[in-house]
Amino acid sequence: MASADGKLHLEDLTVGMEFRSSEYALDAAQIRAFASQFDPQPFHLDDAAAQGSFFQGLAASGWHTMSVTMRLLVESLPLAGGVIGAGAELSWPGPTRPDDVLHVRSEVVDVKPSRSKPDRGIALVRSRTLNQHGELRQEVTSKLLVFRRGS
Amino acid sequence: MASADGKLHLEDLTVGMEFRSSEYALDAAQIRAFASQFDPQPFHLDDAAAQGSFFQGLAASGWHTMSVTMRLLVESLPLAGGVIGAGAELSWPGPTRPDDVLHVRSEVVDVKPSRSKPDRGIALVRSRTLNQHGELRQEVTSKLLVFRRGS
Repeated sequence: MASADGKLHLEDLTVGMEFRSSEYALDAAQIRAFASQFDPQPFHLDDAAAQGSFFQGLAASGWHTMSVTMRLLVESLPLAGGVIGAGAELSWPGPTRPDDVLHVRSEVVDVKPSRSKPDRGIALVRSRTLNQHGELRQEVTSKLLVFRRGS
Repeated sequence: MASADGKLHLEDLTVGMEFRSSEYALDAAQIRAFASQFDPQPFHLDDAAAQGSFFQGLAASGWHTMSVTMRLLVESLPLAGGVIGAGAELSWPGPTRPDDVLHVRSEVVDVKPSRSKPDRGIALVRSRTLNQHGELRQEVTSKLLVFRRGS
């Protein structure tokens, strides 16, 4: 049961709980802006160069896809104390493209109280980032720090 | 042995090869700018709110640390065809702080030719992101797609 403010604590999380985010529309300008700052490679920056590359067309940096996913997780995982990651494991079956409208579907896959710190635990949450055609762009399993009620 | 342009192919990579990046200085304005776009939580946005949070002071989003790390990897891993990730596994022992000057030390930990595609393979590269005091801010093991010579 959630708190009065709807925020979830460790004891509220159960394996199989699902969350769905709102949508986030990407475009070529955003893809190039992120890439020029953090991943300046031709296939993320330039249409013509991208056509002749492994990606065969402009492709978002995987870290851009992850950053957009994080934005959607902040809105869609109502955890008390916020969405705090200790680590994550990601894979990209294919790149995000300029006309993708992304959303994220998350599922709790494990919940473990901490042995040493009684006020918290770790939840494993698997989040799939899909576009408007249901194509999977990223899968990430996040190790999230979650607090107990009253902590 | 690298190509004439100094770029490395799959057959040039050996376990234990090391790479060191240049430095990247963070500050509070960059931390807030990234967070407002991709990870809008109080401990990444506001000094006062961050003081009272789990982080006890303004902390960069882990995905900001990863994005800066990617920027440094693009400059420091001279792979023919670019730095193309199929997946990654990350951990954050502690958050990046406003006055951190980051650099990345990478090491090849595995090299595997593809069974199905003779022109490529996968290299596992472990990258540690450290600040100017040698404090570890992130460790990421990336699964990188690397092409063979002549591909």
